[in-house]
Amino acid sequence: MPAALHMPEPELIDHAGLDSVVYLRIYLTGLKIFVPIACLAFTVMVPVNWTNRTLEQSELTYSDIDKLSISNIPTGSNRFWTHLVMAYTFTFWTCYILKREYEIIASMRLRFIASEQRRPDQFTVLVRNVPPDPDETVNELVEHFFLVNHPDHYLSHQVVYNANSLSNLVNEKKTKQNWLDYYQLKYNRNSQSKRPSMKTGYLGLWGKSVDAIDYYESEIERLSKEICKEREKITTSSKYVMPAAFVSFKTRWGAAVCAQTEQSRNPTIWLTEWAPEPRDVYWDNLAIPFVSLTIRRLIIAVAFFFLTFFFMIPIAFVQSLANIDGIVKAAPFMQGILDVDFVKSVIQGVLPGIALKIFLIILPSILMMMSKFEGFTSISSLERRSATRYYIFQFINVFLGSIITGTAFQQLNNFIHQSANTIPMTIGASIPMKATFFITYIMVDGWAGVAGEILRLKPLIFYHLKNFFLVKTEKDREEATNPGSLSFSTCEPQIQLYFLLGLVYAVVTPILLPFIVVFFGLAYVVYRHQIINVYNQQYESAGAFWPDVHGRIITALIVSQLLLMGLLSTKEAAQSTPLLIVLPVLTIWFHRFCKGRFEPAFVRYPLQEAMMKDTLERAREPCLNVKDYLEKAYAHPVFTNENKWDGSDDGVSDEEWPKEPTLVATKRSSRTNTPARSQRSESKRSLLHVTDERSCP
Amino acid sequence: MPAALHMPEPELIDHAGLDSVVYLRIYLTGLKIFVPIACLAFTVMVPVNWTNRTLEQSELTYSDIDKLSISNIPTGSNRFWTHLVMAYTFTFWTCYILKREYEIIASMRLRFIASEQRRPDQFTVLVRNVPPDPDETVNELVEHFFLVNHPDHYLSHQVVYNANSLSNLVNEKKTKQNWLDYYQLKYNRNSQSKRPSMKTGYLGLWGKSVDAIDYYESEIERLSKEICKEREKITTSSKYVMPAAFVSFKTRWGAAVCAQTEQSRNPTIWLTEWAPEPRDVYWDNLAIPFVSLTIRRLIIAVAFFFLTFFFMIPIAFVQSLANIDGIVKAAPFMQGILDVDFVKSVIQGVLPGIALKIFLIILPSILMMMSKFEGFTSISSLERRSATRYYIFQFINVFLGSIITGTAFQQLNNFIHQSANTIPMTIGASIPMKATFFITYIMVDGWAGVAGEILRLKPLIFYHLKNFFLVKTEKDREEATNPGSLSFSTCEPQIQLYFLLGLVYAVVTPILLPFIVVFFGLAYVVYRHQIINVYNQQYESAGAFWPDVHGRIITALIVSQLLLMGLLSTKEAAQSTPLLIVLPVLTIWFHRFCKGRFEPAFVRYPLQEAMMKDTLERAREPCLNVKDYLEKAYAHPVFTNENKWDGSDDGVSDEEWPKEPTLVATKRSSRTNTPARSQRSESKRSLLHVTDERSCP
Repeated sequence: MPAALHMPEPELIDHAGLDSVVYLRIYLTGLKIFVPIACLAFTVMVPVNWTNRTLEQSELTYSDIDKLSISNIPTGSNRFWTHLVMAYTFTFWTCYILKREYEIIASMRLRFIASEQRRPDQFTVLVRNVPPDPDETVNELVEHFFLVNHPDHYLSHQVVYNANSLSNLVNEKKTKQNWLDYYQLKYNRNSQSKRPSMKTGYLGLWGKSVDAIDYYESEIERLSKEICKEREKITTSSKYVMPAAFVSFKTRWGAAVCAQTEQSRNPTIWLTEWAPEPRDVYWDNLAIPFVSLTIRRLIIAVAFFFLTFFFMIPIAFVQSLANIDGIVKAAPFMQGILDVDFVKSVIQGVLPGIALKIFLIILPSILMMMSKFEGFTSISSLERRSATRYYIFQFINVFLGSIITGTAFQQLNNFIHQSANTIPMTIGASIPMKATFFITYIMVDGWAGVAGEILRLKPLIFYHLKNFFLVKTEKDREEATNPGSLSFSTCEPQIQLYFLLGLVYAVVTPILLPFIVVFFGLAYVVYRHQIINVYNQQYESAGAFWPDVHGRIITALIVSQLLLMGLLSTKEAAQSTPLLIVLPVLTIWFHRFCKGRFEPAFVRYPLQEAMMKDTLERAREPCLNVKDYLEKAYAHPVFTNENKWDGSDDGVSDEEWPKEPTLVATKRSSRTNTPARSQRSESKRSLLHVTDERSCP
Repeated sequence: MPAALHMPEPELIDHAGLDSVVYLRIYLTGLKIFVPIACLAFTVMVPVNWTNRTLEQSELTYSDIDKLSISNIPTGSNRFWTHLVMAYTFTFWTCYILKREYEIIASMRLRFIASEQRRPDQFTVLVRNVPPDPDETVNELVEHFFLVNHPDHYLSHQVVYNANSLSNLVNEKKTKQNWLDYYQLKYNRNSQSKRPSMKTGYLGLWGKSVDAIDYYESEIERLSKEICKEREKITTSSKYVMPAAFVSFKTRWGAAVCAQTEQSRNPTIWLTEWAPEPRDVYWDNLAIPFVSLTIRRLIIAVAFFFLTFFFMIPIAFVQSLANIDGIVKAAPFMQGILDVDFVKSVIQGVLPGIALKIFLIILPSILMMMSKFEGFTSISSLERRSATRYYIFQFINVFLGSIITGTAFQQLNNFIHQSANTIPMTIGASIPMKATFFITYIMVDGWAGVAGEILRLKPLIFYHLKNFFLVKTEKDREEATNPGSLSFSTCEPQIQLYFLLGLVYAVVTPILLPFIVVFFGLAYVVYRHQIINVYNQQYESAGAFWPDVHGRIITALIVSQLLLMGLLSTKEAAQSTPLLIVLPVLTIWFHRFCKGRFEPAFVRYPLQEAMMKDTLERAREPCLNVKDYLEKAYAHPVFTNENKWDGSDDGVSDEEWPKEPTLVATKRSSRTNTPARSQRSESKRSLLHVTDERSCP
């Protein structure tokens, strides 16, 4: 592990991709924000809070932790000025660090994009909502449109096929191939025995008995033929063509122009955007029309609202069913077992919680499904959207839910019936009381989570379970061993919870800060190790998620300021309100400033940059044939990966991912090609499951 | 006037520009929305409301109007279902009309842009925040940057000079020239008399006496020399060059690309946007750097907040000073006059209101100044921003202020201390009571305003005042007669108030609707007449303000829905709340749908369109020299207009505005060139005054 800490950043980027490095910087940002804040809070605020006797004189029960908190200061005291000044200091410090980080990451991103080897997505634009035309096929239409409107830059294009049926066939063939391997292995291993036989019915439980190897060989042959037929059908018949295409340009400049401009009079057709990296494309969503997209967004927004505020209702319903009476009613034969006291107490103790626990485990999958339904076209954007939703859910149900006990719906109901100035007061007033709870939370969820991560407990268990039940061949084992990639959509929102806790409690109960600092430090080291040694990178978005991270830390900052305002006004330090209200205004302004200053680096691709790379490339390789390079880059994975499954080995052929000429080869090239690529199609399909399997801080 | 109604739309566009036509469509939209709503409300809701005896049985005083309103329905009655259904109907109808109008106007805008003659702004992009460079001047820097990054499309550029001092000199010369004309006229008219003499001191009151004609001739000569010197200084010295430039491209396609894309790694430099029309440019704001811009925005946001909520404080202060005691104290010699009863009562009656009245008259100017400080670069965007602010001010201080009496600050204070669900209830409950007030308001402010507009009362008074005091020569008289252009920034927000009233009262007190309909009908006819026969067009933004208009009508719709929800819940029809809450959600979704569907047509310029025009042009005029055409288009007005002021005549030289070749000449060309152009520089400078001079509906 110490070696992991020594690896310099550029090498780490080469090794694990920029996404991972930027992800690690979230922890680093946490440290940079909270270490100085903790030091300052301890030297200034702990003495100020401690040297009071409010709690001693009151009749409340209190712990020593409470004596260090703002609760220990008498109402209306002048000492609250310290907290006010500290709130200003912490805000400015946080903003300063945030600005610096944004700056660094924006320049890292631009440098990464600039120094990168040639990638198909630099030349390619995803065009969606190609309008239907009675006379021309989508193929012709796209070609004509871009030949007319980008005559000097258009190179070629690749229409998107609806290859779901083909993909099913390929998967089926793959399973059968796996079984064939298994039986052949079995037959070879004990070669004296008779050839293995099997039954053709469901799960091999019934049906007529046949020779297994022969059966699978014939099945595979049949499937191969069907696949050939299907593939031909897809490429020839126009009804499999979706109204979307990947359009490639001769230069990066041409692609940058096309991606950033409006193409058509009607702004809902010929929508162009940067093509995601080929392994980042989420193929199923490429053909959703504009109107359907907006309707889907509405549906998901409403659904997410209900999910967040009313998720307790079905769970409570399930819980009420899953008690002992319910079980007895549904299955009278269980009566005997349930009468045993031990079983009864276990069920009574465990069952009510289990429905909730299961819900929380599948929540990220639900959110991911929502994002998929919403129609995003790349896996990275799916993950970003899920992360945002997960954060909102956590904020409402974990943070607010822990402070004001009660379900989210009850809170919502309360908030509607409270005035705008009492809401921060209600929440703010109960914040100091919850410090002990959150310290425990940080230790249990944060520290233990990190420790579990280094031991990879969950994956270990899952691996053994899989190994026992499912693994038949070496290939299966390899798949089961695959550590997957870091799941941004679940891990990042959890880090954000610690930012929120740290910022909210910095002024109120500074004793919480060391716990936060330890969490960030530990998590940084552990995840750095994991990223270097364990995880594979699934895709590379060049840190495109940073604006989200930044925005959520800003949200946490504003929440902390509002709650402090509420808290201080209950402490009869009302003269502080006008001074405190300046803080959120300034913070929002700061956010808008950063948005204008840095965000374009994450969503657009400057022409200067594109031109520079084009010119360099032209000088280096004057006779480069970009067309050949791009020809197969954006084919549906089922077309390119198919031969891989045909041949039995798992290695990736070199032609598959067009290679950079050796002139500018870097370490990255080998990595980019092999491990991530080999899991491309599988990992995408099993994304939902993968996200659950990993423990997060 | 009847002739004005017969003019078909295309001719009207030719005659008065698309902006005016789209402006008229606001009234038309009002009619389309409210005529069917009024009919439906009268057939359905008037009987439902009328056939109750709630008000008769109550002890409240009520008028017949109240009997037609929702107040007449007993609390908890099932009749509220009618209102609910009507709210749905009205919402859907309004949305349907809004969508259709947006569609029509977007296509009108695109057709207008497509059919238009060649204009310099189609080829030109405004580049701001050119970074300072130690080695190169701005001029060289711009050229190199665009030669590198847009090699195939860059044509030329025009740096922006800081010509404020030159512009002052030119103005001074113009005044002196005017005096010279005056004296020469005077001398010629009574030719027997001696040559006119004058004094050189302040306002001609003291100083040594000189021959007026000689004096002014020598002065003009001196100024001409100074102007020459200054002009040379500006064009040669680099310190007059501002870090901004108008960059022209060979094709519309090139300009469209440059305007829509990110140029540099650092998103705060090399900012590109569409160049406004030459006469639409607001020259003073071209050189504001990015950081300064964001700070200005913050300052103005805070200032506007205080202006809206606290404007009563300084006015109350002035009012307290401006009473009789205050005057006596400040000017004891007035004592005698003030003791006269008549004078006393007039002062006591008039003075308190006068400070408020003056404030309201100069409010649009204050808002315009704010927008100017904020740094917008075109007059049209300045007007749009001012209109938004004026609308917010009116909404809070006129609409809410009339419903809940009290200053905006008191309301704000109340709202902070009320819960989110009681705010609509408080406002909603007092809405039916204010119907009579608003009917009066519509008649006094709306109808009378329109009547005043047709008589042009205010301009008439101003004209006579000016004629009496200021006019010396024919040129002065011409300027005084100039009717100016329609002031979008003050008129549009006032129309929006009627949309708001109509939508809010449609369900509550339908008797208000006919008044609204009459207002829209009257205003449509009158403004159509005025636009055709009176106003000059100052600039052409091709209806760029429609998204704002649309957004504000949507806001009004949502406000009406929320208030109805509040009102019904005070009427103990609480079961309606869940049904009503669906409406704002749907409306917001509808707004977002429209934004995605239509707004790009107003902010971006599709490449398809640009390419089509380029191709057409190339076919028609293969040897067109765009460079010559664009050479002087974006020179500071002081450079191009200067020769106009040199020569005594008011006509515009043909070279000034590069002319379209006769091949595609249309009616518009003559209009575009002459009258608007001649007032360009003056009207811009006197914009603040012009906006006050016009009465609005």
